[in-house]
Amino acid sequence: MLPCRRAHALPAVLALALVALPPLLPRALAQSGSDITIPLPETQGQTLLLQSNDRADYGPLAEQFLTQANLAYCGVASMVMVLNSLAVPAPAAAGYGSYRFWTQENVFEPAATRAVLSPEVVARQGMTLQELRGLLASHGVQARAIHGDRLSLAQFRLLLRSNLSQASDRLLVNYDRKALGQAGGGHISPVAAYHAASDRVLILDVARYRYPSVWVPLTDLWQAIRTTDSSTGLSRGVVVVRQI
Amino acid sequence: MLPCRRAHALPAVLALALVALPPLLPRALAQSGSDITIPLPETQGQTLLLQSNDRADYGPLAEQFLTQANLAYCGVASMVMVLNSLAVPAPAAAGYGSYRFWTQENVFEPAATRAVLSPEVVARQGMTLQELRGLLASHGVQARAIHGDRLSLAQFRLLLRSNLSQASDRLLVNYDRKALGQAGGGHISPVAAYHAASDRVLILDVARYRYPSVWVPLTDLWQAIRTTDSSTGLSRGVVVVRQI
Repeated sequence: MLPCRRAHALPAVLALALVALPPLLPRALAQSGSDITIPLPETQGQTLLLQSNDRADYGPLAEQFLTQANLAYCGVASMVMVLNSLAVPAPAAAGYGSYRFWTQENVFEPAATRAVLSPEVVARQGMTLQELRGLLASHGVQARAIHGDRLSLAQFRLLLRSNLSQASDRLLVNYDRKALGQAGGGHISPVAAYHAASDRVLILDVARYRYPSVWVPLTDLWQAIRTTDSSTGLSRGVVVVRQI
Repeated sequence: MLPCRRAHALPAVLALALVALPPLLPRALAQSGSDITIPLPETQGQTLLLQSNDRADYGPLAEQFLTQANLAYCGVASMVMVLNSLAVPAPAAAGYGSYRFWTQENVFEPAATRAVLSPEVVARQGMTLQELRGLLASHGVQARAIHGDRLSLAQFRLLLRSNLSQASDRLLVNYDRKALGQAGGGHISPVAAYHAASDRVLILDVARYRYPSVWVPLTDLWQAIRTTDSSTGLSRGVVVVRQI
């Protein structure tokens, strides 16, 4: 299955070795990955949401929740959720009369946006952290990318809490699913809330056909944004967005 | 602008009269419609959600929140949200490899569904309460339609609270927006929560380009489902859905 960000292919001999290897971890430990995430739609996930004190972005983002339009469009769906949730003035949407809102199609209408990256290229290979930043900036919002390896755990926690406690800005994460115990590779989604007592972050996962939205330990998400995007050799990270 | 359910056209002379008439209501009263609804994404709307004790459907439905695919597809988007949120086994979705989930396209794949109503007809004129029920039933779920004029206010409240306090069933409302102080006519959306202290109901409005999700007084929603659908001469109402 195509990951949202296509990584370089695994050398065949290594891939074969991975398949052939017996499991190295005891069963309980090997399964611990599934315990890393707490699905939002389930009772425990809803309880964390109710208890969260840093959830100013949740309401506006949940109202704009989207499924990525194809297997490589995680960044596009995330961008559209952010633009709609910040009420950034939108063009008309085809088929909706005079109603104006951002879609995964019309977000590429401005020439300045297509100059950063064309929809065809994104559909083929996804986007990098800096491309995500550039695409957002092309719509006139302030977008700042921070690579994961430039953030200490404490800085990441501070950045998240500050962002999620006010409704005027958004935070997107570009991370490796494997660090969260999920199958897959590079991915992009918005975060919507932070739960202090459990030190967990809520990701509204735009690949809704694959995983539900999940609460993940902040330390795991921090590890997940510090992974290297093999297409750039740089670490993944976060993009902070606000209206200018 | 095309309403979700196209009503019979207003006679030209009456339409002209409406345009020509001066406003009959004092300004404050005329604007009261805008006070009926409390937007979910805003602080007050989130507070009602936090306080609600009948919100078992909110988590699963919010995770599947959709924008109707065209101006007449309110019933289709609502149906897809319900099927996905109840985890009704879905076909593969075009363009998503082997991932299986309900979309506003593949929900019409079964011949039994198209026998109820074709997507072309829905795109042209929306659907009635009984058609919504029939489309849902064609997917093997238990779907029961109740016309609004068959429900007392107390019965409606009881039905809503009972449905929204357990996660195993869903409730869709077919209502007239005007009774909620909104512009437009017939519409369909799922309800997700009930707030007892204010006697309000949360509608996750699938016409996201038009109105946000809103908390509305239960009495207003009751009036709104008792309005007559001019295409059938019957009142609008609710559809209750559960897995068999």
